[in-house]
Amino acid sequence: MYASTEIKKLLRDVSRGRVSSRKAFQKLKDLPYQDIGFARIDHHRQLRKGFPEVLYCPGKTLGQIIGIARIIISAGSILLATRATQEIYVALKKIYPWAKFDKTARVIFIQRKKIAVGKGLILIVTAGTSDIPVAQEAAVTARIMGNRVKMLPDVGISGIHRLLNERKLLRRAKTIIVVAGMEGALASVVGGLVKCPIIAVPTSIGYGANFEGMAALLTMLNTCSPGVVVVNIDNGFGAGYFASLINK
Amino acid sequence: MYASTEIKKLLRDVSRGRVSSRKAFQKLKDLPYQDIGFARIDHHRQLRKGFPEVLYCPGKTLGQIIGIARIIISAGSILLATRATQEIYVALKKIYPWAKFDKTARVIFIQRKKIAVGKGLILIVTAGTSDIPVAQEAAVTARIMGNRVKMLPDVGISGIHRLLNERKLLRRAKTIIVVAGMEGALASVVGGLVKCPIIAVPTSIGYGANFEGMAALLTMLNTCSPGVVVVNIDNGFGAGYFASLINK
Amino acid sequence: MYASTEIKKLLRDVSRGRVSSRKAFQKLKDLPYQDIGFARIDHHRQLRKGFPEVLYCPGKTLGQIIGIARIIISAGSILLATRATQEIYVALKKIYPWAKFDKTARVIFIQRKKIAVGKGLILIVTAGTSDIPVAQEAAVTARIMGNRVKMLPDVGISGIHRLLNERKLLRRAKTIIVVAGMEGALASVVGGLVKCPIIAVPTSIGYGANFEGMAALLTMLNTCSPGVVVVNIDNGFGAGYFASLINK
Amino acid sequence: MYASTEIKKLLRDVSRGRVSSRKAFQKLKDLPYQDIGFARIDHHRQLRKGFPEVLYCPGKTLGQIIGIARIIISAGSILLATRATQEIYVALKKIYPWAKFDKTARVIFIQRKKIAVGKGLILIVTAGTSDIPVAQEAAVTARIMGNRVKMLPDVGISGIHRLLNERKLLRRAKTIIVVAGMEGALASVVGGLVKCPIIAVPTSIGYGANFEGMAALLTMLNTCSPGVVVVNIDNGFGAGYFASLINK
Amino acid sequence: MYASTEIKKLLRDVSRGRVSSRKAFQKLKDLPYQDIGFARIDHHRQLRKGFPEVLYCPGKTLGQIIGIARIIISAGSILLATRATQEIYVALKKIYPWAKFDKTARVIFIQRKKIAVGKGLILIVTAGTSDIPVAQEAAVTARIMGNRVKMLPDVGISGIHRLLNERKLLRRAKTIIVVAGMEGALASVVGGLVKCPIIAVPTSIGYGANFEGMAALLTMLNTCSPGVVVVNIDNGFGAGYFASLINK
Amino acid sequence: MYASTEIKKLLRDVSRGRVSSRKAFQKLKDLPYQDIGFARIDHHRQLRKGFPEVLYCPGKTLGQIIGIARIIISAGSILLATRATQEIYVALKKIYPWAKFDKTARVIFIQRKKIAVGKGLILIVTAGTSDIPVAQEAAVTARIMGNRVKMLPDVGISGIHRLLNERKLLRRAKTIIVVAGMEGALASVVGGLVKCPIIAVPTSIGYGANFEGMAALLTMLNTCSPGVVVVNIDNGFGAGYFASLINK
Amino acid sequence: MYASTEIKKLLRDVSRGRVSSRKAFQKLKDLPYQDIGFARIDHHRQLRKGFPEVLYCPGKTLGQIIGIARIIISAGSILLATRATQEIYVALKKIYPWAKFDKTARVIFIQRKKIAVGKGLILIVTAGTSDIPVAQEAAVTARIMGNRVKMLPDVGISGIHRLLNERKLLRRAKTIIVVAGMEGALASVVGGLVKCPIIAVPTSIGYGANFEGMAALLTMLNTCSPGVVVVNIDNGFGAGYFASLINK
Amino acid sequence: MYASTEIKKLLRDVSRGRVSSRKAFQKLKDLPYQDIGFARIDHHRQLRKGFPEVLYCPGKTLGQIIGIARIIISAGSILLATRATQEIYVALKKIYPWAKFDKTARVIFIQRKKIAVGKGLILIVTAGTSDIPVAQEAAVTARIMGNRVKMLPDVGISGIHRLLNERKLLRRAKTIIVVAGMEGALASVVGGLVKCPIIAVPTSIGYGANFEGMAALLTMLNTCSPGVVVVNIDNGFGAGYFASLINK
Repeated sequence: MYASTEIKKLLRDVSRGRVSSRKAFQKLKDLPYQDIGFARIDHHRQLRKGFPEVLYCPGKTLGQIIGIARIIISAGSILLATRATQEIYVALKKIYPWAKFDKTARVIFIQRKKIAVGKGLILIVTAGTSDIPVAQEAAVTARIMGNRVKMLPDVGISGIHRLLNERKLLRRAKTIIVVAGMEGALASVVGGLVKCPIIAVPTSIGYGANFEGMAALLTMLNTCSPGVVVVNIDNGFGAGYFASLINK
Repeated sequence: MYASTEIKKLLRDVSRGRVSSRKAFQKLKDLPYQDIGFARIDHHRQLRKGFPEVLYCPGKTLGQIIGIARIIISAGSILLATRATQEIYVALKKIYPWAKFDKTARVIFIQRKKIAVGKGLILIVTAGTSDIPVAQEAAVTARIMGNRVKMLPDVGISGIHRLLNERKLLRRAKTIIVVAGMEGALASVVGGLVKCPIIAVPTSIGYGANFEGMAALLTMLNTCSPGVVVVNIDNGFGAGYFASLINK
Repeated sequence: MYASTEIKKLLRDVSRGRVSSRKAFQKLKDLPYQDIGFARIDHHRQLRKGFPEVLYCPGKTLGQIIGIARIIISAGSILLATRATQEIYVALKKIYPWAKFDKTARVIFIQRKKIAVGKGLILIVTAGTSDIPVAQEAAVTARIMGNRVKMLPDVGISGIHRLLNERKLLRRAKTIIVVAGMEGALASVVGGLVKCPIIAVPTSIGYGANFEGMAALLTMLNTCSPGVVVVNIDNGFGAGYFASLINK
Repeated sequence: MYASTEIKKLLRDVSRGRVSSRKAFQKLKDLPYQDIGFARIDHHRQLRKGFPEVLYCPGKTLGQIIGIARIIISAGSILLATRATQEIYVALKKIYPWAKFDKTARVIFIQRKKIAVGKGLILIVTAGTSDIPVAQEAAVTARIMGNRVKMLPDVGISGIHRLLNERKLLRRAKTIIVVAGMEGALASVVGGLVKCPIIAVPTSIGYGANFEGMAALLTMLNTCSPGVVVVNIDNGFGAGYFASLINK
Repeated sequence: MYASTEIKKLLRDVSRGRVSSRKAFQKLKDLPYQDIGFARIDHHRQLRKGFPEVLYCPGKTLGQIIGIARIIISAGSILLATRATQEIYVALKKIYPWAKFDKTARVIFIQRKKIAVGKGLILIVTAGTSDIPVAQEAAVTARIMGNRVKMLPDVGISGIHRLLNERKLLRRAKTIIVVAGMEGALASVVGGLVKCPIIAVPTSIGYGANFEGMAALLTMLNTCSPGVVVVNIDNGFGAGYFASLINK
Repeated sequence: MYASTEIKKLLRDVSRGRVSSRKAFQKLKDLPYQDIGFARIDHHRQLRKGFPEVLYCPGKTLGQIIGIARIIISAGSILLATRATQEIYVALKKIYPWAKFDKTARVIFIQRKKIAVGKGLILIVTAGTSDIPVAQEAAVTARIMGNRVKMLPDVGISGIHRLLNERKLLRRAKTIIVVAGMEGALASVVGGLVKCPIIAVPTSIGYGANFEGMAALLTMLNTCSPGVVVVNIDNGFGAGYFASLINK
Repeated sequence: MYASTEIKKLLRDVSRGRVSSRKAFQKLKDLPYQDIGFARIDHHRQLRKGFPEVLYCPGKTLGQIIGIARIIISAGSILLATRATQEIYVALKKIYPWAKFDKTARVIFIQRKKIAVGKGLILIVTAGTSDIPVAQEAAVTARIMGNRVKMLPDVGISGIHRLLNERKLLRRAKTIIVVAGMEGALASVVGGLVKCPIIAVPTSIGYGANFEGMAALLTMLNTCSPGVVVVNIDNGFGAGYFASLINK
Repeated sequence: MYASTEIKKLLRDVSRGRVSSRKAFQKLKDLPYQDIGFARIDHHRQLRKGFPEVLYCPGKTLGQIIGIARIIISAGSILLATRATQEIYVALKKIYPWAKFDKTARVIFIQRKKIAVGKGLILIVTAGTSDIPVAQEAAVTARIMGNRVKMLPDVGISGIHRLLNERKLLRRAKTIIVVAGMEGALASVVGGLVKCPIIAVPTSIGYGANFEGMAALLTMLNTCSPGVVVVNIDNGFGAGYFASLINK
């Protein structure tokens, strides 16, 4: 996974006798991940992706979660655990008293030093009050990654003047995340108003022919407004992460 | 299918000897429909529903279409044939030279006397130019049923000022039909702006995850704006018919 | 969101010096909604749509629900909260002792003065006893909006004489709401019998290949009877609201 | 709902003065169902369909179930309540001590006199042990309707000799009900072996791409063996009822 | 595939020396089917199922169809070829001049002697004119299998008096096949009126949210009327075959 | 649709008598779109979104396409027509001899002056050769919008070394578009390798359980690699447009 | 179900008078399965398939499970019970103190003698830590069937170097099982790296547009890498069983 | 993509001065694939997977197909082109007169020397005659890869004796491929009879609720017979390839 310049340098070192062939092989082989039996922590990711591995909690035992968390933190990285529960928080808090839990977003984060905040504004817009938890997951993610974030909740299109009235704010944003359930039409409307890139997050809020968020997902994928992309249903984390990438 | 008052009268007539029991039975049995082998033309519908049977062309042979048309017209009714083709039109035109064909709407109508036009305005709004054929089917249907109809095409939400600028017209309408493909979000936006009832028609315009109109259909069923109802994908006729019912 | 006549008047006032340009700008900006952090209450909706914002409870915390309710009520509006629970009712009852809860319909309503009842009859027909809760949501909604409502439950088509026997009542109605689960065929049958507009509500009653109401939904969308429109699965509120719009 | 012979007779009676016109109208109107507010018990069904109304329990309150049961029984009919619970049974048992509950089938039946058992054999075959509850619902239904029923459980096609070995029994049956979950292939195999009609019941037993019985349902609908028809997923009652119809 | 009595007899013959062990093995092995490379004609089916193999044409080359037809006919059986084309008919007609083609039903049948017609009446009811081809496939199949068949087309529920008026005929039938597209509700309505078994055939007639017949299929599977079973979409043959089985 | 600063200025002008109130109203009303009957060309979009309206050809008549094209071009804008055909190209070429047609991408573009090319590199990666047309639509779009674009086709994961070998190029890109059909896994793999934002485009290339691109779409939405967003199936234009937004 | 050589021998014995015809019939009939009312234990399977019947627990009562287990074990066979619970384990442990329960895999196995371990290595690779339970079901199954098994968990493609680094191990395996949820792309990537057959197991790990494992299932079915086959979602047992078949 | 032993050797050569560092870097980079603009031919695949790249024709232009074919052949490899047309064959035949085209299978293969045929028998079983083209694709693939292949067509379960009669042949096979459309139940039945691994191929043969092969696919994924795995709908190539892998 090393860039070719690094390989080149290593080979030069070998040819000049500075590094033995056995050591060089070790180096090439010893890629920075750590095997703890049930997981392989990808320390390399920080370098490769600019952000350490993120812990998705569902389907993992408490023991596994603590094990993975320990290694990520011991490598000096920020821990971001999504879809977390109070129980996981209590367990981690005992080890890392500075752990924080955003209950609405269901996100735990453990972070020693503050990250300097960037310049561009990420604006997170929600269609309704019920969409706030997913929006909050996006907000926490983007903030931890060092972005300025502002929330604009409950501006759904059934009362479109609530949105139109905030056009000034909408135009100030460098990136907009639109979080919407039900029919998910807000993303298209925002997409028609602004120049900046929009990340649409369908939520599973709704009932009947909503099919757990599929209605909003299809709406967003079929948007007639250019400049709109989509992430998975309820994937606030993914939207916050992507927004951070393009905000830099 | 007769109302009980009619049955009461008939029974009274029988008891008073004015009508024989055999004749009364014939009357009760002889409901006004006509059996022509492959079809039973429902003449009764004009009385019961206020509009004669409508001829949906697909899946019928040319011979069957002409046979059904002849009987509907001979009963003095208006003929409305939907999803019609040029070939059907040519065949009917030979028999009924006053037949008319709206190519865009794929509707043939044969109608002798003009129907007096009602007062309320039915406004038909489309998201894009490609949605016009379905809108036109709704318009032709509503006009034949005696309504004032106005079209407002191509006001999709990717340029929402085109719609907002027509708010005056939107508010003047007594009923609005919103015809939209792609993500179908226009119905929700219009639903947020006006007081009058809205009939949403999803169209099959779109591609990929549109799934032949399902995306727009789900959007409209899950609308967060109250006052919006939905008909089948591409069902311009159904929307025009329903609009006519509530416009009266 | 103001009509152009209002803007014209405002501009005239400015040009005549009656209103300062700064104030005029404030007026144009200060659209009537209220921002309470997690929600933007759309006071304007009463004017625009003829009925205030309705509170859909799922996905909102108790605190948020109370917050939103307070503002809607303080603006002098009727509160209608759908999909409500006993817990929400108890909390609201403490603040507004005149709050009422229809358990079957899962609707809370808080309303000071009685609304004058209109003339047309809205008839709500159900296929089975299990469909009553959704029908009741429609009934409560339509009654609060000032309509005369009558229920005709359990007239499903497996014993069609129960329905046919009520033809007189069916014909008296100005609007009919048909609430049906299982195969949802009742809407088509009623659609064949009456002249008035019909709003079909599929319910999630059923099992197996019913797919949580999808079978009834598809049946109703594909109806061969003209004059039938559809709302989302279990959306009694939407049907009652729309019926009220066209009953006036 | 009366046959025309009955109407003819009634009219003759009216014309001969034996029956007054008012009484005749009452008779025509007074169709045999009973309105108890939340339900309309279809007493007529016994005559029309040969079996009284059956009580499907889910979605009904205990009070409604008891109310409906009382009326069906007081009309002298057999009560068959499907998808019933222990709680319903206890409540009905108090009123009708001779009530019986088949826990596996989740069926309550209340029946005074024994029905004479017919001649043809209905054979109910299951693919696995887990399919027995649905099969039992079919068996109880068919037995109450007066049929000889035999169960042949767990002869799924993963060990086809278990089935082939029972060919003699299979050929003795006048009607076969095949109950199968997972891939539901048993119906096709049985369909290839016997001459008699086969009713296939898909069950929701399975996981993953079974999609709650849809896999078995599609298998059975697409069977390459002629002589196989299908009922809804888990609909043991429907299969037992239909088998009884064709066994007579 | 022999019944155990036949095996018993064969074994007795072997033990008594009447049949050699080699011959007995041949007999057990030599099951009556014929291998012609691309197909194995199941002559045994006539005995086992009471009707010979039926030729489903799609996906087979003309050569394969002729090859299979030759063998079925040479075995003295009736040939029934479904979903056939004019081209296939012309080719078969050359070899078997008495071949017949029902164009509407898309069925070819080649049959020397007339089959004696049974007593019970199979009634085939269609919702619309467009459903006739599928109904005709059922009719041809049932007639070839020796049944009395009557068609009652175009009695869909949008004008239910057309159906109710034929109640006498409906009650005379021993078995009813209901063929319906669009929302397919006719099967439930007929199911509520008659005592006899009903076979429901969904057709692919419709558009939009009909999804090629899925709407009608789901309607029929979820019917609230007992005594209704379902076959695959457009499977007129399967319905006619099953009706014949239960009519005997 | 004007920003509030503009409204402020206008109001100031009115109050100072520089602009009459009637003229001001005209200005507010006269939003820059042009109504040509079947379409409303959104000239405002250039200002609002930074790029003029794009012409999606399917569902429009040739006459409509030419009409819309004329107005967009006469407003001095670039014309970009997607999903175009040879026939449309020939018609437009007659009027605008400098029109260009990229057959592979099915894109027509009419553009007078060259746009200065930006700095960041947009890399478009395809899984297979068959995905090139969609990739090309993205490339043409991004190039017209003034971006440096490079194609890297046929680096699908069945031979992952083809991709790994280009890591240097992958890391040089500022934005990557991944175009993939079949199982669409390439987006996740690229997502694991690079830091920059990735736009995933599922294509409809594949067969069977691919369901016209749905398999690839679901794969991309469920990606385990952070930093990946998705557009509609085959939506090369949308990906190119979004890439251009974030490349600036 | 006996091979023809066995039938030949039996017939020879009958013809030579060594076996009476009645006894021979018994033998042919008495196929090795055991009928215990609710189940037919297929003892024959050990011979036919090389492994005894496996007990799938869901949908069976505790009593039925114990009944089936007793008979399988008393026939000298290994018992493998999948999707088992702690409660079932406790009940079986009382009877068979040597019963073992793998909680992660939810598998109970009861086995007296150790099976000799074969030579080829089955490697089980998982995309994430959450996929381990399904992988473990595969591992337990393959080990009980006498295979050498190695687990390689958490090598998902978001950090592909974790996988590439194990290429040596991947190439040593004779068969690889890939267990992956989310987008399930790992199977394709492994499929591009190795020569040996790969069995892909989609898991239901994921959320939103994952649709309970359908996303991963479709990915795996549409893989562009040859040499990959698929089993049902979460079917670790099926993969372990199949791997064992081809490892021998 | 080189194994670590090769890297070790290379590094040793560099350290000993036998290879310059620049050359070594070239070697590591110069992986064996060939970039021809629109495709990257993966010559390495022969070594890695044991079989060269296979050409899937749909979606590629004739020029692209010829370009790719030339390079695969010039590298000394076998060319296998699937889903090919007569037109492609004619074009390739001109360049490679020894090219062969299996029309039924739609496969072109160009191969100079004969491959030695292995020992194990791959048996390909089809449910019907219409499934032969997919079976043939599997057969051609497996034969080109050096396997002994036998076809057993038209042994579907509607006449199961055709299959049972071939048990001897079924047991002789080392691997069985089951190709079936309609309900696809054949795979489960074969799975219950034999010990060897079974690869199930659903085909798109069928109509109505078959949904283009989805019914058969779900049947096969949910099989109750262990030892059965599945490939994509109509993927004869994939089945033949996998069978070849496990036959060696």
